[in-house]
Amino acid sequence: MQKNLTPDKKDMKLKLSDLQEKINRLETLINTSMVFSSILDLGELLNIVMTKAEEVMEAEASSVFLIDKSKKELYFITARGEKGKEAKEIRVPMGKGIVGWVAEHGRPLLVPDVTKDSRWFKGVDKKTKFVTRSIIAVPLISKGKIIGVSEVLNKKGNRNFNENDLELFEALGNQIAIAIENASLYTELDELFLSSIRAIVEAIDAKDPYTKGHSSRVVEYSLLVGEALADISKDELKQLEVSATLHDVGKIGVPDRILGKTGKLTPVEYAYMQRHSEFGSAIIEPIAKLRELIPNIMHHHERFDGKGYPDGLKGERIPLFARIICIADSFDAMTTDRPYRKKRSIQKALLELERRSGTQFDPKLTKIFIMVCKRRKLT
Amino acid sequence: MQKNLTPDKKDMKLKLSDLQEKINRLETLINTSMVFSSILDLGELLNIVMTKAEEVMEAEASSVFLIDKSKKELYFITARGEKGKEAKEIRVPMGKGIVGWVAEHGRPLLVPDVTKDSRWFKGVDKKTKFVTRSIIAVPLISKGKIIGVSEVLNKKGNRNFNENDLELFEALGNQIAIAIENASLYTELDELFLSSIRAIVEAIDAKDPYTKGHSSRVVEYSLLVGEALADISKDELKQLEVSATLHDVGKIGVPDRILGKTGKLTPVEYAYMQRHSEFGSAIIEPIAKLRELIPNIMHHHERFDGKGYPDGLKGERIPLFARIICIADSFDAMTTDRPYRKKRSIQKALLELERRSGTQFDPKLTKIFIMVCKRRKLT
Repeated sequence: MQKNLTPDKKDMKLKLSDLQEKINRLETLINTSMVFSSILDLGELLNIVMTKAEEVMEAEASSVFLIDKSKKELYFITARGEKGKEAKEIRVPMGKGIVGWVAEHGRPLLVPDVTKDSRWFKGVDKKTKFVTRSIIAVPLISKGKIIGVSEVLNKKGNRNFNENDLELFEALGNQIAIAIENASLYTELDELFLSSIRAIVEAIDAKDPYTKGHSSRVVEYSLLVGEALADISKDELKQLEVSATLHDVGKIGVPDRILGKTGKLTPVEYAYMQRHSEFGSAIIEPIAKLRELIPNIMHHHERFDGKGYPDGLKGERIPLFARIICIADSFDAMTTDRPYRKKRSIQKALLELERRSGTQFDPKLTKIFIMVCKRRKLT
Repeated sequence: MQKNLTPDKKDMKLKLSDLQEKINRLETLINTSMVFSSILDLGELLNIVMTKAEEVMEAEASSVFLIDKSKKELYFITARGEKGKEAKEIRVPMGKGIVGWVAEHGRPLLVPDVTKDSRWFKGVDKKTKFVTRSIIAVPLISKGKIIGVSEVLNKKGNRNFNENDLELFEALGNQIAIAIENASLYTELDELFLSSIRAIVEAIDAKDPYTKGHSSRVVEYSLLVGEALADISKDELKQLEVSATLHDVGKIGVPDRILGKTGKLTPVEYAYMQRHSEFGSAIIEPIAKLRELIPNIMHHHERFDGKGYPDGLKGERIPLFARIICIADSFDAMTTDRPYRKKRSIQKALLELERRSGTQFDPKLTKIFIMVCKRRKLT
């Protein structure tokens, strides 16, 4: 301490600018941690984090690897910098190279000059044509387990990374690990939600051997159309998925003897059967977060010409997702056996969709469905 | 800049120790943000955050308030320090006092000496007997909206807070807001999961007018027992809740004519009815995260004396939660009308539980259920 109080001017100058630099970088780091922790989509989040990490570390490129335990390999989840795209396809065996060493030993590593380190694995540079000079790699540890590795490459201005840089990047590594953990927890819970409603809906489908697997196929077909739409967001695709999963949940309210009847339904029975779209809407009505999906379920039996049920809505007054589910629903009904007829071939079902396009179905969406179906068969 | 390079020794001394202190506190702040962002339970999380916040800020006490929009009030979600417990019951009107001012204006506030600030609201100190000298309060802002206020009280060693402290606490405030946002997103999704399976199960119950609302009452009764158990964790209570919600989901697989039959079931029909516990287990089997709950659903009709179904398990070989659900299930059946008999009074149903304790029901759990039922009626 005494030494600090009476330094000579040159030491003092060095010390001051060092400390000031450290403060600046710590402050950037704090701001970084603010930015990223509120995003729960892992890809989006890591992209933002690593942009900031490169800024703080003054690095030319950066990557995040996760461990694929079954294959004992590391794979890129984020690869930034000039050659990031090329890098992403490469998988690194555990224990191999700097990153593999860090993943295996769970310890951070500062390599000021990669050409002087025997662990250095030239494979990635060779494939990407990136020239690595200097690396800092830190293990990502979540609940005591090594889940991956984060690295920064080449300090800008032709400098090499040093011990101070290592210390900072370790702090950042801890944040990245937590961000990954949070995003995973959220994804797991989201999976639980979807798989639970899926499982129950499948049980409803399975009551009638003729509709076994129906809802999950309607989800698949609906998403094929959804994904082909321009300007559709991830959130909207999720809404489409949940709506399609639940489109027939109202069948819980239809008596077995009507649902499973092999003969022709009487008018009264048919009227009851039609009520499944209302029943479905009523079931999800109490769920605040699903309320906006009600129109998709309520109107999946409307017709484009206005002759459908329950409300006789016409054209684009029928919600977009209900129009999509309607096509998917009908296509699945056509291509599976029914008690009163054999299934149509895919080819014939597509022709039938075309025939009813503009009357029963939205013509634009029918065109998209036919296109993606054909393309999918060809690839 | 020039000035920094040729300071006199006294300035230098001050500057160096200031910078060093700032670095130390920034480093603590970074470590703090690492600790807290991985916890998604809001109460637990804020308690850890504010412990760290007090440490970094050298404060005697700290609180976090959230805004109750409907009542235009702020309420404590965390109140730490000597008088924290007393403080928690107090609600602060919007615009009132330092905290109310910050919530209304959305700007941070440093009050070095509260006695000299006209906004100071003495009400809380009066109730808690805490003596506030100095306050820093910062707004918690999530997605552009003010969601609450965080404050630290009294810098230790009889000092007052200054501008440097304010700057640090603002950074921490941003972290707290994000932590609250993350925890809320997680809670919302969790709610969505539970309310969705609840809604579908209620629709199954409603197929038979005699079992309307059955599953949600079984959840309620099961949790009454669960909460009375020593050493039960929040996670375990959640498992009990989900298991009880889904205990009859297998009824999807039982034909309506058996489920809704008003007369006595034939032996064949009864055998079919009994299969609902297996059907339920089969429905949730594909859901990885729910797999551990299968035994609770599979065995909720076992009897303590081994004469139940499907496996004739005996005593404590029946999973704990299945034994709890069994009591809750039977109690609800006794206290609701059935096609073949009127409902029993609660009093009589409890006597009946007691009579069957040790044969049909686990005696210890029966005792707990009767106790909580009686206590609940009295309060």
